Amino acid sequence: MIRAAELIQRKRDGEELPDADLTELILGYARGEVPDYQMAAFCMAVFFRGLSPRETYVLTEAMIRSGETIDMSGALGRKVVDKHSTGGVGDKTSLAVAPIVAACGVPLGKMSGRGLGHTGGTLDQLESIPGYRTELSLDEFIAQVREVGTAIIGQTGDLVPADKLLYGLRDVTATVDQLSLIAASIMSKKLAAGAQAIVLDVKVGDGAFMKTLEDARHLAEAMASLGEQAGRDVVCLLTDMDQPLGAAVGNSLEVLEALDTVRGRGPADFTELVLDACAKLLALSDLEVGEAEGRRRAEAAVADGSAEAVWRRWIEAQGGTADESALPVAPVQHEVAAPVGGYVSRLGAIRVGVAAVRLGAGRRTKDDAIDHAVGVVLHAKRGDRVEAGLPLATIHARDEDAARHAADEVLAAYEIEDAEVPERPVLLEVVG
Amino acid sequence: MIRAAELIQRKRDGEELPDADLTELILGYARGEVPDYQMAAFCMAVFFRGLSPRETYVLTEAMIRSGETIDMSGALGRKVVDKHSTGGVGDKTSLAVAPIVAACGVPLGKMSGRGLGHTGGTLDQLESIPGYRTELSLDEFIAQVREVGTAIIGQTGDLVPADKLLYGLRDVTATVDQLSLIAASIMSKKLAAGAQAIVLDVKVGDGAFMKTLEDARHLAEAMASLGEQAGRDVVCLLTDMDQPLGAAVGNSLEVLEALDTVRGRGPADFTELVLDACAKLLALSDLEVGEAEGRRRAEAAVADGSAEAVWRRWIEAQGGTADESALPVAPVQHEVAAPVGGYVSRLGAIRVGVAAVRLGAGRRTKDDAIDHAVGVVLHAKRGDRVEAGLPLATIHARDEDAARHAADEVLAAYEIEDAEVPERPVLLEVVG
Repeated sequence: MIRAAELIQRKRDGEELPDADLTELILGYARGEVPDYQMAAFCMAVFFRGLSPRETYVLTEAMIRSGETIDMSGALGRKVVDKHSTGGVGDKTSLAVAPIVAACGVPLGKMSGRGLGHTGGTLDQLESIPGYRTELSLDEFIAQVREVGTAIIGQTGDLVPADKLLYGLRDVTATVDQLSLIAASIMSKKLAAGAQAIVLDVKVGDGAFMKTLEDARHLAEAMASLGEQAGRDVVCLLTDMDQPLGAAVGNSLEVLEALDTVRGRGPADFTELVLDACAKLLALSDLEVGEAEGRRRAEAAVADGSAEAVWRRWIEAQGGTADESALPVAPVQHEVAAPVGGYVSRLGAIRVGVAAVRLGAGRRTKDDAIDHAVGVVLHAKRGDRVEAGLPLATIHARDEDAARHAADEVLAAYEIEDAEVPERPVLLEVVG
Repeated sequence: MIRAAELIQRKRDGEELPDADLTELILGYARGEVPDYQMAAFCMAVFFRGLSPRETYVLTEAMIRSGETIDMSGALGRKVVDKHSTGGVGDKTSLAVAPIVAACGVPLGKMSGRGLGHTGGTLDQLESIPGYRTELSLDEFIAQVREVGTAIIGQTGDLVPADKLLYGLRDVTATVDQLSLIAASIMSKKLAAGAQAIVLDVKVGDGAFMKTLEDARHLAEAMASLGEQAGRDVVCLLTDMDQPLGAAVGNSLEVLEALDTVRGRGPADFTELVLDACAKLLALSDLEVGEAEGRRRAEAAVADGSAEAVWRRWIEAQGGTADESALPVAPVQHEVAAPVGGYVSRLGAIRVGVAAVRLGAGRRTKDDAIDHAVGVVLHAKRGDRVEAGLPLATIHARDEDAARHAADEVLAAYEIEDAEVPERPVLLEVVG
């Protein structure tokens, strides 16, 4: 019998819980023996008292033990890599990184989630490709990573059921934004999915969950530590999310931009982040190359067309139409003109994300349907010089009315000043 | 629709909630629309953030509004008084106060609870009287207060159902010990039960919920403020619970001691507290007497036998046998001898309470049955001089084995020193 009330009280009073007790609490919850109301009180106590690094690791391990795990490296006889982002506006990094890394000979198998609120989801992006199957069996998933070099699917099997339960509970009890719980939630899924090396992209800023570099650093350190304790190689990139990433926000628009980037024609900031992530992944892989050499190989795979070739094989292996002309296109395109000339000093990620959600590109609640064609393409980003009357952005909408509303929202996201604005890199810091 | 998650978050972040939102949260919970897990997270947020005096009042009012209320004064055309204790070891004050106050011409109607853990419960004590009915209808209750002057029953009707739900939830989520929640729980029941003047006995010390005078003072102030805002007269007595109150601990033993006290033959500390409480109640009543005159009248009612006469009428009106020889007696009496001579410097209330519970006098869990005959009678209290080998206490047990275990526990509760121990009064402070 689990003395849940006693454990809640000890956590409430600031104690560090013994490994066995914390494990039993989590496994008991997953088995339905500890009721939601006790776990809700526990999560709120954790919100105020935190978890020690040791407790965070024990929580992560217990969540993993609540379900199945996958041994990707064992199945492939290779060191398999994975990549995860904490989520932001215009974040389609995985779509570009996967085929580039695979083209360099490193297997990348990824299980992704859907978007909620103003941040996009990799699965939603991929589902804008006609025919793309996000639900492969575990065997199909492993076979495709072996044969094609990469696969991106929805979570398969019974991985980390405790996280699914716990996340659902935290979502309705105001206990989502606690660093240790976030770290354990992300890492339990990554570790259970079996990659040996993981690059984590921790977004920082207005459009991200972590608003400050300091918070992002704490989360990155917690996740890197969990990876290390589980014997995996983990590197965290802290990257800017004060403005949207790249130019495209909205599912098919982002797929197109990812493909353009794989072909070497992507926006500067997005290309920079994709190549940074690829370089880190290749350096962690069993190629045993340095980061500089990794970056060189990634650039070469883009330049010589091998990354685009893997893109095509990957999309087709999962049943999708690799031809970009098959992507859905919104019936209305509406230009947002710059009201004055000057330099873009700010381009609020959340406002652009909210505009995209209102167009139908994202979900307000879990059960909302998504319009894959709609979204926003930004022609001017922070630091860019703009001329009055020339286009700042293009709205891709279902109808004129929706387009006008989104245009107002996007325009409000821009701040334009007379003076030149200093550059700020997309990659802010590396942890691990 | 109640935005419970949002309200939890605002409380979590230290906000004061608007009256209407907090009311709706509580009423929604009572209606079953807000689930236990959200209320559990809310209670834990309150544990860390507290409630403002305003919020505490709104919470109390909302809990009262969740069920029926009784207008005692309206029904009787008199100012009805009530008395409540936060609970301690050997606390049988209500049993003695009720008939004395009634004998002075002031109606006292009280709804009581059962004991849990080491503190006794008034209903459990009364149920050791053969035939005593704790479940009267509301009409019977009011009629008896009118005709006999007093009645003590279990909670009747559908009073404060939100408190019952909330208390049950707090009990299993480590959110019981929060001052505002305690104050609201106690006062919602007192206010709903309809007395116009209330004396609250807030126990302080080892055997009480409040361990320090400061905590007790805060709780007393919170409850007095709630009473005032509801237009009732409230006085709080902060009284000592470092040692048990009086000599008897255990249900029929306590009934006997209460009756002895009503006859003027009770232990000094208990008699002092009973007369203090009576004096306050009479001073708050519609007799319009001062406290000194109230005390004089209470002493007179004890001295002239009128209080004992009311005791008899009261017990018989509720179906009980007023004759003390009808009370159950334990088969085994076992003396605890003083191991050394000296002065009692400490007599730990919790240890004595735990000994009584182990004998069967109290409940460890809500569903435990009670042995009304067993308990402990203390012959030496703090400050008393004791001789080696002479009895410190008598254990009243079901069998020899239980008696020996209890004797060890009671002996361990005593500390005996060579030097004389300074006196400490039972009444520590008055608030309100």
